[in-house]
Amino acid sequence: MMKAVGVIVEYNPFHNGHAYHLQAAKETAQADLAIAVMSGNFLQRGEPALVSKWFRTKMALQNGVDIVLELPYQFATQKAETFANGAVSILNAIGCHSLCFGSESGDISSFLQTVDYLDTHKERFDQSIKMNIKSGVSYPKALSLSFQSLSSPENILSLDKPNNILGFHYVKSIIQQKSSIIPLTVKRKNANYHDEHFATDTIASATSIRKALFANKEEKISIEQYVPAVTSTLLKEYLAVYGHFHEWENYWDYLRFRLLQMSPEELREIYEVEEGIEHRLLSAALDSTNFNEFMQKIKTKRYTWTRLQRICVHILTNAKKTDMKNTSEQPSYLRLLGMTKKGKEYLNLYKAQFALPLVSKLSAYKENDILLDIRASRVYSFGIGNQTKDSLLHQEYKQPPIYIE
Amino acid sequence: MMKAVGVIVEYNPFHNGHAYHLQAAKETAQADLAIAVMSGNFLQRGEPALVSKWFRTKMALQNGVDIVLELPYQFATQKAETFANGAVSILNAIGCHSLCFGSESGDISSFLQTVDYLDTHKERFDQSIKMNIKSGVSYPKALSLSFQSLSSPENILSLDKPNNILGFHYVKSIIQQKSSIIPLTVKRKNANYHDEHFATDTIASATSIRKALFANKEEKISIEQYVPAVTSTLLKEYLAVYGHFHEWENYWDYLRFRLLQMSPEELREIYEVEEGIEHRLLSAALDSTNFNEFMQKIKTKRYTWTRLQRICVHILTNAKKTDMKNTSEQPSYLRLLGMTKKGKEYLNLYKAQFALPLVSKLSAYKENDILLDIRASRVYSFGIGNQTKDSLLHQEYKQPPIYIE
Repeated sequence: MMKAVGVIVEYNPFHNGHAYHLQAAKETAQADLAIAVMSGNFLQRGEPALVSKWFRTKMALQNGVDIVLELPYQFATQKAETFANGAVSILNAIGCHSLCFGSESGDISSFLQTVDYLDTHKERFDQSIKMNIKSGVSYPKALSLSFQSLSSPENILSLDKPNNILGFHYVKSIIQQKSSIIPLTVKRKNANYHDEHFATDTIASATSIRKALFANKEEKISIEQYVPAVTSTLLKEYLAVYGHFHEWENYWDYLRFRLLQMSPEELREIYEVEEGIEHRLLSAALDSTNFNEFMQKIKTKRYTWTRLQRICVHILTNAKKTDMKNTSEQPSYLRLLGMTKKGKEYLNLYKAQFALPLVSKLSAYKENDILLDIRASRVYSFGIGNQTKDSLLHQEYKQPPIYIE
Repeated sequence: MMKAVGVIVEYNPFHNGHAYHLQAAKETAQADLAIAVMSGNFLQRGEPALVSKWFRTKMALQNGVDIVLELPYQFATQKAETFANGAVSILNAIGCHSLCFGSESGDISSFLQTVDYLDTHKERFDQSIKMNIKSGVSYPKALSLSFQSLSSPENILSLDKPNNILGFHYVKSIIQQKSSIIPLTVKRKNANYHDEHFATDTIASATSIRKALFANKEEKISIEQYVPAVTSTLLKEYLAVYGHFHEWENYWDYLRFRLLQMSPEELREIYEVEEGIEHRLLSAALDSTNFNEFMQKIKTKRYTWTRLQRICVHILTNAKKTDMKNTSEQPSYLRLLGMTKKGKEYLNLYKAQFALPLVSKLSAYKENDILLDIRASRVYSFGIGNQTKDSLLHQEYKQPPIYIE
């Protein structure tokens, strides 16, 4: 029997911290192989990925992951709870023995106890969140405040750390889905998720690495020491092929075009556009000349930057409320982005038992539930120049799963 | 009393043929001033105008027109019948004494007799059109065939000439609307509407002039002899301010982006998208790298190039069937784009009697029926580079009617 540990990742891009986590996950789980569920071209924080999902799949496979599956758009571009729910479902469907996540805490029992504790005090907790939201703060802030207000027992998690929150939702999803997956966690090496500066000699957050990659020529810092050689090579290859990395500013013209083409009523059909924010979006689109300026104009206390960016992704991909209505349910397919030889062996051995259909050739899968992923990939290709756009645009159908011996 | 002659124009760009027609119109009508109804930024043939409606308004005013009114989007980007219906309504509402159009025929009695003759034989004629369409030809072709098949009496129009067809619909609209406008026509000087080559020393079709303007550097032909000096100056000024003239290829990326972002169901909500053409449009968008290639791919016997271009304009401006439902009715406002001193005098004298509200300041007009014009202008601004886009984008609200002493 082959024992698989699951990891839930974005690899934007794959860095030394990820390599460390992956190694630790395999050891902690005593696993024969690692399976990653990875966001596609648009990420949980509502941003286009630096490089395409195919290049990020290569990074993963060449750095120790054996199977890469895509987390469908309708779970990937979502708040932690929905994101976790989708990712855990996929690891469950593909038969993972355990799930190992990085966290600030590093102690799995504190996650289990926190999930249990909040379940017991659910009513009080929910009430408190509602009240906090009414006072005008954002959802994450309300969550954190409510959590602090509960008389906290010993060994409870600190839920104001981003990786603890994600981990909390992973564990909660495992329990709610009555999955047999064993939750495991390893303590993250000292780089905070949002760090913009380099913390140690070899470990840096993906945020700080992206910042360095987008820096002006004069401020250019080498990222070589923070990423495996493979990442470095693939990033250079991406630049050579497509000309630049993807960032929000590359999509600004299309986002703006689309906004100025819509009525407020139509905008309200887009997922997460609520509470009158459509008017704010439309007037800011008219008056902003770049994405950052636009974001500054629409930012309010109630909406986090991340939530607003996710709304922008949904406008860009034209993801409507009706398209996203199944987010409380579970994914309906396993989209295979790549595998190693060992990964292939695992798939061959167990695929008959998978709880969901395995999609390796897109044209062979005829269900509509995958259309948003396809559309997101097409929209993603508009972030680069015309000469190379088409190869990226057509890759979604043409690219078979990446295979590494 | 001031006597006004109406003309229905696009001025894309204003050339010597237009100057001749305008002069002849004023003389024939013995008019004190000329009022033009002009298409906005998108034209009847489903194309973006070479230069903005404001620049075309300046051309008109500096060449003998006294008042320029915008033909609203929902009438301007339409087949001849709807276009004519909208334009005649506006000239009627502003109190024009006569309407003078250029035609291949040049004989107004033949227009009157043809309208009357077709009205008498309406049933037979309509039946014949239906049968021809069923055989798979386009609407204009069916019209022409049906017309030929009627036993034609003397002095009947030749309805396979584009300006005769437009004139026919102007006269028909005047009669149907029971308007007191007197229809007049002047024979066009020898340039055929669709001519791509220069026919005489001073008169050339707008098509051939546009072709010369878009020609490669090596093939550049001077247009100076075919246009008034004012046109030449304004075209140069446009280039200096905005960098280039507008053509479909400038909008291709946005059209393609929008198409790839849509489902077939959503595309079917767009005005004129019918009979399954949505599938053709979507698959051609995926496989074409420029607008011309796209058009070649979607062209069929049943759809004229013009009709397909109009569909593309509606996709670009997001004009839905529900937005365009009032096209059988009449315009509900008079949008003033510019006036001369004499034009101003006319407006001051008669505006209390106009049948529709005169909109000179956009922000003062709160009705929703004008939103499509605003949206079309915003979309139009995406056809030029980022540096100058914003000035064009904001002009719609900021620009007061142009006034020339």
